[in-house]
Amino acid sequence: MKKNISQVIFLLVFALNSTAFSQNQNSSENKTPMEKPALKNIGILLFENFETLDVFGPVEILGRLKDMYQIEFYSLGGGIIKSTQNVKIVTQKLTDAQKFDIFLIPGGMGTRLEVNNTEMISKIAAISNITPHVLTVCTGSALLAKTGLLNGLDATSNKRAFEWVSSQEAKVNWIKKARWAVDGKFYTSSGISAGMDMTLGFVRDMHGLALARKIAYEIEYTWQEDKEIDEFYLQDLPK
Amino acid sequence: MKKNISQVIFLLVFALNSTAFSQNQNSSENKTPMEKPALKNIGILLFENFETLDVFGPVEILGRLKDMYQIEFYSLGGGIIKSTQNVKIVTQKLTDAQKFDIFLIPGGMGTRLEVNNTEMISKIAAISNITPHVLTVCTGSALLAKTGLLNGLDATSNKRAFEWVSSQEAKVNWIKKARWAVDGKFYTSSGISAGMDMTLGFVRDMHGLALARKIAYEIEYTWQEDKEIDEFYLQDLPK
Repeated sequence: MKKNISQVIFLLVFALNSTAFSQNQNSSENKTPMEKPALKNIGILLFENFETLDVFGPVEILGRLKDMYQIEFYSLGGGIIKSTQNVKIVTQKLTDAQKFDIFLIPGGMGTRLEVNNTEMISKIAAISNITPHVLTVCTGSALLAKTGLLNGLDATSNKRAFEWVSSQEAKVNWIKKARWAVDGKFYTSSGISAGMDMTLGFVRDMHGLALARKIAYEIEYTWQEDKEIDEFYLQDLPK
Repeated sequence: MKKNISQVIFLLVFALNSTAFSQNQNSSENKTPMEKPALKNIGILLFENFETLDVFGPVEILGRLKDMYQIEFYSLGGGIIKSTQNVKIVTQKLTDAQKFDIFLIPGGMGTRLEVNNTEMISKIAAISNITPHVLTVCTGSALLAKTGLLNGLDATSNKRAFEWVSSQEAKVNWIKKARWAVDGKFYTSSGISAGMDMTLGFVRDMHGLALARKIAYEIEYTWQEDKEIDEFYLQDLPK
């Protein structure tokens, strides 16, 4: 009797698998190039004197998901924007109703000016309001905080600019010891290279640990997977 | 007697130090802004489909030595060059007698075409011949190897493109297990992120360990200081 039940279960599982397999085959056969899912769009915000690696660490990682995402670079006025390290990038002008699937705001010395640029802050607020995922690197969280959207939420920033960043908006729950912080749709990272760890963490949260580790391996990057381990917290500058 | 000799030595050392100190003071007082040492120039070679982080990891690090170096981006024809991750960079056209203090060649899928671009290879050969420091990242070493300048020298490259790279020039002493390799004026790194470890190693060799560690700390980067430790050597892709 037991053997019979086993056989029935085996046949049932086999039959279900076969059905699923033939359905998968049909659905892939029926797909025309027209039905290929559209790429989601990643908008990177640039401004004069952004920090080079804040942008291109995350871009290296997200740029490897070519089947899912298209990366474009934007600025308030469009045209060529220069980083502190003399990298000149071609950008598009942000439109009035700009919406992304993922929005990334870098940091850098330029943020010192941009926190007082009301057009910049209201643009960041408008985009962040309607964008499902908002990521900041380093002092980029100062710009996002200035919109008020981080009020009552966890966020972090560069350890050597922490007082300046946190003074931009006291209502944020600033976390000083964190490689990166996540609160709802907002990801904020610590300084510069931490943006790479955060972006891999974001890929893990969106698409699974295996894919995030695969990317880290492909780019030969030693990923700090735990956002709470922060070896740069309150450390003195090496002598 | 012993004490007397000690005293004499002490006074002698003190006198010599005082002289050196006053000389230093004088030389710095005598300096006018006109005499400020000229910035050395770092030339970064770009081509279509270069790999984003191969370039901007090292640029983040070298860009922090603003008092010593000026970074500029070049390509064969000048104009806008696009990375595999859709970053569009403004470049200058290489001149006929281009000479840099430091020359950096990135890798990326674009190298598959460029190894067969005779104009590119002869330009790399001409520049590398007269440039005191030549650095390559990832598959950038395939382009440098193609010039013959690495023949008989130690070099490395990306672990997942190693057979292709090493097949470009068999006379190079290709080192498979290395985060980066140094032979005379040539620095060659392993894949993508390894370029950052190499560049910090280069800064250490040029300007001392303290400065290299200071930069790593400022950019919150966990530097692999030992070029022979290569955790990505022959590792299987994570499942």
